[in-house]
Amino acid sequence: MSTPAVGRPQRVDARANRGRILDVAGEVFGKGGESASTEEVARLAGVGIGTVFRHFPTKAALLEAVLAREFDRLREHADALLGAADPGEAFFGLFAHLAARAPAKIAITEALLDAGGDWDGDAARASDRLRQTVGALLRHAQQAGAVRTDVELPEVYALLAGISRAAARAQLDEEAMARLLAVVFDGLAPHRA
Amino acid sequence: MSTPAVGRPQRVDARANRGRILDVAGEVFGKGGESASTEEVARLAGVGIGTVFRHFPTKAALLEAVLAREFDRLREHADALLGAADPGEAFFGLFAHLAARAPAKIAITEALLDAGGDWDGDAARASDRLRQTVGALLRHAQQAGAVRTDVELPEVYALLAGISRAAARAQLDEEAMARLLAVVFDGLAPHRA
Repeated sequence: MSTPAVGRPQRVDARANRGRILDVAGEVFGKGGESASTEEVARLAGVGIGTVFRHFPTKAALLEAVLAREFDRLREHADALLGAADPGEAFFGLFAHLAARAPAKIAITEALLDAGGDWDGDAARASDRLRQTVGALLRHAQQAGAVRTDVELPEVYALLAGISRAAARAQLDEEAMARLLAVVFDGLAPHRA
Repeated sequence: MSTPAVGRPQRVDARANRGRILDVAGEVFGKGGESASTEEVARLAGVGIGTVFRHFPTKAALLEAVLAREFDRLREHADALLGAADPGEAFFGLFAHLAARAPAKIAITEALLDAGGDWDGDAARASDRLRQTVGALLRHAQQAGAVRTDVELPEVYALLAGISRAAARAQLDEEAMARLLAVVFDGLAPHRA
């Protein structure tokens, strides 16, 4: 008969497995393409397919957990910038970081929708929290004089979401993406006398 | 027995019907929503559903023709600006026009994909022609000193496509959209000394 002392390592193992499955799934589905599958995730995570399904009963549940985790990580990254010495650098740095992470997020979202999942649950809540932190960073940057004060979060977020998606779809190379960000950053700067 | 002289008005009628069906379908599917249907198009165009299907054997064929026509019209609008006295005004005016027309185009595209159609045919060719004209207007505006010369068409087009789509999805109101365009236009201006 197993005792709690014996049981604990199993729970730790289960938690480690869950984390590893999510990490691998983020990699696999973040790249997109035909070969992305739950089987591939299990293989690369070194677990059986049954273990994957024990943690995530459906592919959609797995993908939503991956997406929620990605949003949580982006939000943690954003949270860490809230106390930055240079709020302008913090805001523009986060903008570039979010744009760079967008292709993976879009690929995972498309896989989620293909798998019959949707956006109502944990992923949507995590996305809302990220948006709030971006709003706080925008206000800080505006107060510091680094971003024009006649813009508000809705259009800034639409700009961020829009260029991220368009850049991913148009498969812009790094240089074109840098030029695109330069246009947006110059446009957001309080450059009018 | 009908003579060519009698036959001609019938062909004219058929052509007029086709044009009216496309106009109405552009309106109906451009608004999107649940009520958009081929039946609704026939009703509002004042023709039988059989007439619609005689011209467009499938819903996808109808929607692709609507989309191709919309792109052709946008390209005609853009072509007319090629000889404008103020190339900067022409370029920025077209950018704003395309962004304003984008929600309808997106709704029609989504209906097309839902109907099992795709983007390989007339609509894609019409879209390519529009892109070429936008490229010519961009070069004119750059030569006139109205747009910074360190941007190229791929990122400008990605910016246009991205903010159009994001603005439609986020349902930005007119004022937020104007602020968004102000950021982009200021960013595209050659404002650095």
